[in-house]
Amino acid sequence: MSTEASEYAGLQSVIWAGEHLDLLDQRLLPEEIKYLSLQTSEEIWEAIRQLKVRGAPAIGMTAAYGVVLGSRVEETSVEAWHRTVHQQANYLATSRPTAVNLFWALDRMKAKADAIVQSGTSLELAKRGLLEEALAIQSEDEKTCRLIGEHGLELFKDGMGVLTHCNAGGLATAKYGTAMSPIYLAKEKGINLSVFADETRPVLQGARLTAFELQQAGVDVTLICDNMAGMVMSKGWVDAVIVGTDRIAANGDVANKIGTYSVAVLAKAHNIPFYVACPLSTIDLQTESGAEIPIEERPDEEITEGFGKRTAPRGVKVFNPAFDITPNEYVSAIITEKGIVYPPYNVNLKKLFDVQA
Amino acid sequence: MSTEASEYAGLQSVIWAGEHLDLLDQRLLPEEIKYLSLQTSEEIWEAIRQLKVRGAPAIGMTAAYGVVLGSRVEETSVEAWHRTVHQQANYLATSRPTAVNLFWALDRMKAKADAIVQSGTSLELAKRGLLEEALAIQSEDEKTCRLIGEHGLELFKDGMGVLTHCNAGGLATAKYGTAMSPIYLAKEKGINLSVFADETRPVLQGARLTAFELQQAGVDVTLICDNMAGMVMSKGWVDAVIVGTDRIAANGDVANKIGTYSVAVLAKAHNIPFYVACPLSTIDLQTESGAEIPIEERPDEEITEGFGKRTAPRGVKVFNPAFDITPNEYVSAIITEKGIVYPPYNVNLKKLFDVQA
Repeated sequence: MSTEASEYAGLQSVIWAGEHLDLLDQRLLPEEIKYLSLQTSEEIWEAIRQLKVRGAPAIGMTAAYGVVLGSRVEETSVEAWHRTVHQQANYLATSRPTAVNLFWALDRMKAKADAIVQSGTSLELAKRGLLEEALAIQSEDEKTCRLIGEHGLELFKDGMGVLTHCNAGGLATAKYGTAMSPIYLAKEKGINLSVFADETRPVLQGARLTAFELQQAGVDVTLICDNMAGMVMSKGWVDAVIVGTDRIAANGDVANKIGTYSVAVLAKAHNIPFYVACPLSTIDLQTESGAEIPIEERPDEEITEGFGKRTAPRGVKVFNPAFDITPNEYVSAIITEKGIVYPPYNVNLKKLFDVQA
Repeated sequence: MSTEASEYAGLQSVIWAGEHLDLLDQRLLPEEIKYLSLQTSEEIWEAIRQLKVRGAPAIGMTAAYGVVLGSRVEETSVEAWHRTVHQQANYLATSRPTAVNLFWALDRMKAKADAIVQSGTSLELAKRGLLEEALAIQSEDEKTCRLIGEHGLELFKDGMGVLTHCNAGGLATAKYGTAMSPIYLAKEKGINLSVFADETRPVLQGARLTAFELQQAGVDVTLICDNMAGMVMSKGWVDAVIVGTDRIAANGDVANKIGTYSVAVLAKAHNIPFYVACPLSTIDLQTESGAEIPIEERPDEEITEGFGKRTAPRGVKVFNPAFDITPNEYVSAIITEKGIVYPPYNVNLKKLFDVQA
């Protein structure tokens, strides 16, 4: 099967529709593609709370639009509007108390409102300025993702097999995703890649989201269980692994969805390069190494009855870490919007921030 | 938590109850422990067909008892009884057409009936002789499993962490299992081992059966997803891996449940010994290497809707191999009823069969 060059055809999870937000309900995937038409900040708050939207960038931009919707009330003055913006942003910040990108986006919206008020503009222009900020957050994310894809693309050649774990795709971002961005750009350029998607137990983001969005976009994708990655590599079907990340330490250690470390070890044993894709905002130079990154443990039930059916004995002890740490020696390269970074990471990651692009 | 010495307390899946067979319905595990009281060979046939019993040795002994039950009719002569035994054995062989151990057990029952008839005995003694053969199949399996455990035990020390994949436990055999036999014998001797059980996607034998039977037997067991094995090893929690096998080639290559190869590669990367336990009957000297062993591919639905709920997009391509091959260089030792075999396997496996024990 040859892939013809074609534009990105993945679903967008967050779409500003002029007067309201169209939000893809990710909880219903892959069985149902349904956009929610959200009119109020309360509806946005509920959508974030109930995980209808997931992926740090997607959550951040959804909340930003929530501030826009929440401050559309008929205020009589710019000052009253300014107070409402702050109230709404603080309210939306309570929707998911641990989502860093959510706070970042809401702080940015508040700062924009502050700047607008200080510039002494009209209420109408103030509202327009705030909407433009939300749109900017989304378009900057899209640009960042596209740049990651363009830089990453040089690592992929026609006919290659690529394995990925979890979901670092378009659904989690404005468009393209991080790890999936080079795959989508390859598709745009008619470069034929075959993707193996680990289903990613326990929550199955690989099966439910990655396989889904690649299939939607017309990318050649094969779903496997996590424990099949080694066999698929041994067959010679995988030429590169690419994953996203939740946080990269200053030394290049990578925190990502549980199972990433196993994939990295398997890749090294098969002499397959292991790539990590992320925006600069994910690189945390304040964290020296992966040893400093706390690993969240999640409820037993994700493993013992994750699909509405009990599949393990009651009372059995369970270990359910949400993430693992892949030491830098397993990471062949880190792909960012500023280019590809190679080891030694403790030197080269810092350079990304030193040089002003 | 310290383990006190205690007798094997695992459930037996196949119990001859004097006039009928009590068979543990393994399909209901782990939610329900229910023994079926089987009175006829038709009921035995159905139980095998519907996977109420699984595990090659357990299937073989169940079928053997089926022949006993099916030939209890009021025949008037030893000759008529002999014909019935053959008919019943041939009938039971159709219950699962690819189960080698099933045919082996039924052939043995037919051969026993042939020998009984040739010896010119009474109908009553003939029937008793046939029952004794079924009981012998079961007790020989128990003895074999116990010997595997006794030999294997020397590889395990108090306080060790042990990781296993799939189910090679007591439920699949007369008692003790193969890979789990050293674990159960350790428990009998008060040697404290902590077991990590991979859940073993897609069919979850690790979660449903291994975690269940170890918990039943009072063994310290922790259930993990397959993709957590690497992280658990990196934490230093695993001192040995032990698994069963479906077939070992003459060169020591091991065919076993999908995911075994990944575990073996991860074990090697962490300098953890990787042991395989099996009876001699599983070692196939006619097969030169793992490359000759065909790998069955199973239905997509095991991955896409294995939990009674669709968890992957419709129409997505799926790769679902039931087994993988672990090359001999990853295998630290093979534990059999005749002792522990170390590399080079192409020399040392043959010796097992040369020397008559």
